[in-house]
Amino acid sequence: MAAADGEKSENTVAEEVSRAVESAKELQDSASALISRNTREEDALRQRVVSLDSTIRQIRSSVSSLVGQGKLDPKEAEKLEEELYRASYTLSEGDAAAFIPSKSHGRFLSMFLGPINVRATRKDVKLKVKEEYNSFRDRTAFLFLVFPSLLLGLRSWIWGGCFPALPVQLYQAWLLFLYTGLALRENILRVNGSDIRPWWIYHHYFAMAMALISLTWEIEREPDCAQKQKGVQLFLQWAIMQGVAMLLQNRYQRQRLYTRIALGKARRMDVVWGETAGVKGQLWLLAPILFILQGFEAYVGMLLLKIAYVGVVSEWQVITCGTLLIIMAVGNFANTVQTLATKSRFKAKMKKSKSMAELNHGSPHS
Amino acid sequence: MAAADGEKSENTVAEEVSRAVESAKELQDSASALISRNTREEDALRQRVVSLDSTIRQIRSSVSSLVGQGKLDPKEAEKLEEELYRASYTLSEGDAAAFIPSKSHGRFLSMFLGPINVRATRKDVKLKVKEEYNSFRDRTAFLFLVFPSLLLGLRSWIWGGCFPALPVQLYQAWLLFLYTGLALRENILRVNGSDIRPWWIYHHYFAMAMALISLTWEIEREPDCAQKQKGVQLFLQWAIMQGVAMLLQNRYQRQRLYTRIALGKARRMDVVWGETAGVKGQLWLLAPILFILQGFEAYVGMLLLKIAYVGVVSEWQVITCGTLLIIMAVGNFANTVQTLATKSRFKAKMKKSKSMAELNHGSPHS
Repeated sequence: MAAADGEKSENTVAEEVSRAVESAKELQDSASALISRNTREEDALRQRVVSLDSTIRQIRSSVSSLVGQGKLDPKEAEKLEEELYRASYTLSEGDAAAFIPSKSHGRFLSMFLGPINVRATRKDVKLKVKEEYNSFRDRTAFLFLVFPSLLLGLRSWIWGGCFPALPVQLYQAWLLFLYTGLALRENILRVNGSDIRPWWIYHHYFAMAMALISLTWEIEREPDCAQKQKGVQLFLQWAIMQGVAMLLQNRYQRQRLYTRIALGKARRMDVVWGETAGVKGQLWLLAPILFILQGFEAYVGMLLLKIAYVGVVSEWQVITCGTLLIIMAVGNFANTVQTLATKSRFKAKMKKSKSMAELNHGSPHS
Repeated sequence: MAAADGEKSENTVAEEVSRAVESAKELQDSASALISRNTREEDALRQRVVSLDSTIRQIRSSVSSLVGQGKLDPKEAEKLEEELYRASYTLSEGDAAAFIPSKSHGRFLSMFLGPINVRATRKDVKLKVKEEYNSFRDRTAFLFLVFPSLLLGLRSWIWGGCFPALPVQLYQAWLLFLYTGLALRENILRVNGSDIRPWWIYHHYFAMAMALISLTWEIEREPDCAQKQKGVQLFLQWAIMQGVAMLLQNRYQRQRLYTRIALGKARRMDVVWGETAGVKGQLWLLAPILFILQGFEAYVGMLLLKIAYVGVVSEWQVITCGTLLIIMAVGNFANTVQTLATKSRFKAKMKKSKSMAELNHGSPHS
């Protein structure tokens, strides 16, 4: 459209300028019209989604009250509930999910990020976020194995039984960054519709606090460092076990998630951090490992308290870290047990509905 | 629509269920249609915005080459440039701005948050983010005054000239959180179209590193704590000055931003952290304060290096923090000078275009 520079006259340029000004105004008008129309239509759709959601909940309660009054056959009720489940699954997993009013962002996210919206509208973006979270966890688990192993190895081979401060502090700084990243990502997943158990997010807040506190903790104190660094040593050993468990969990949970998605039973944004895997057989491998890990976590915590009590190292950091470890161990244990209980409660139900799900979604692998 | 629970028969409920299933399917279809239509229309608009943007840049270069060839009167050229400026201002500040391809999120954001999109489409959300950033800075400046003053006060009145470790470490942990929050928010603002100078973001990365390192720094060492804690004391005094400067800056920059918006010269997402205020007269108050602050920052850094050099405290933390402080002081100085230079270069131009701006936007206060 534009002539070569050499041939341009003043008039041509002036014309081009006024055309550009005109286009800018037009674009501004189209953009403003598009945005306001979208806002209006999205709001309308949002209202329809909200009202259908509450209708489904109403029907569900009338079904169970009719069963209670003996006016409805339990078998018939189950069929109706199955259909309602599928309706709400369509709502929460389909494109309409983008219009479900989002959960509040919570204090943690707004403390770090301010009031920016971290909710994705498009499904593929949401899945990308979830996938990246999974691969972040994989990388994390790998470093959880390598980092403390290296520190423990170097301590025996090179450092003559005593940790120098800097490498341990680098590790602690990495832990702080890691747990902050996990807590932020999990909060973002929650906003995007994941039903991650709140405990696993709290758990990462505690872990952040512990990493921060451990940074202020004086590590090197000759003489007698072997005894005084007992806590650090145990903590690193626990971290290695944690790495192994995380690797197993990540693998099995992903497998389980895919199975559940195939069965139409899981929402894709679900996170099952710390949950025992559902793929049969693997449960019997993971559950004991998790319990041993939690026991060891509590043991390290109590050992730290003991060290503080007998006065070897009586800094407040030791007492606080010990207490935090015990709280985390107890919370992890309680949540794992709860998950197992929920799982066995739903087992019978799952079996019944499996045949129907297979009809709908094709035969799953397990 | 729904009858009371008591009157409902099995058939009514079954009907309601199938109606709900039907509605869910309908909603899914409407949502999917709306999302795909929006995506299509937004993409089309985005293309138009991008092409107009490059057209404007082309015209601008032809104007200046025509002036160079003597084919265009400089006065005429200036008028055309003014019009082009207004066209690109309409694009970048109006509703079309939502469709300008966003800047990459950068490593820092994706490290902490993963691949989630932090760009706001709606103008009011963007402004809310900017407003919250300003009020976060206000709160920050206030605490920057209170926190170190309290520590220094308690040291003289209660702690007998020696800082205990815990309160200082709490302060350092707060600094780490604060700088992380600022760096995250500034990155988010950048993604949302703010033209914040990259240095101020780097500056906060350095400050994060320093806060992290200072946490690992052993603070209390009797005897002779007064001498050994000299660095901490100077750092706190610097922080108080920083608080005063931040309060002044925040007030003046906000005023300046509003003036510039009124003049049609600033984009509303602009951040002028560390820049000298533009409101006439206040510049002569702020600039010296900033330079004194930067000098003091470098002085504290060199004092830390000296402490390490003469061997009073020879930990690596002291050397690293000293170096970081000097780097930050030099960078801050260079950027402030650059801003002042840019300002005086544009002064003449601003004066000329001021009368026109006043015509367009009404008389400003300054």
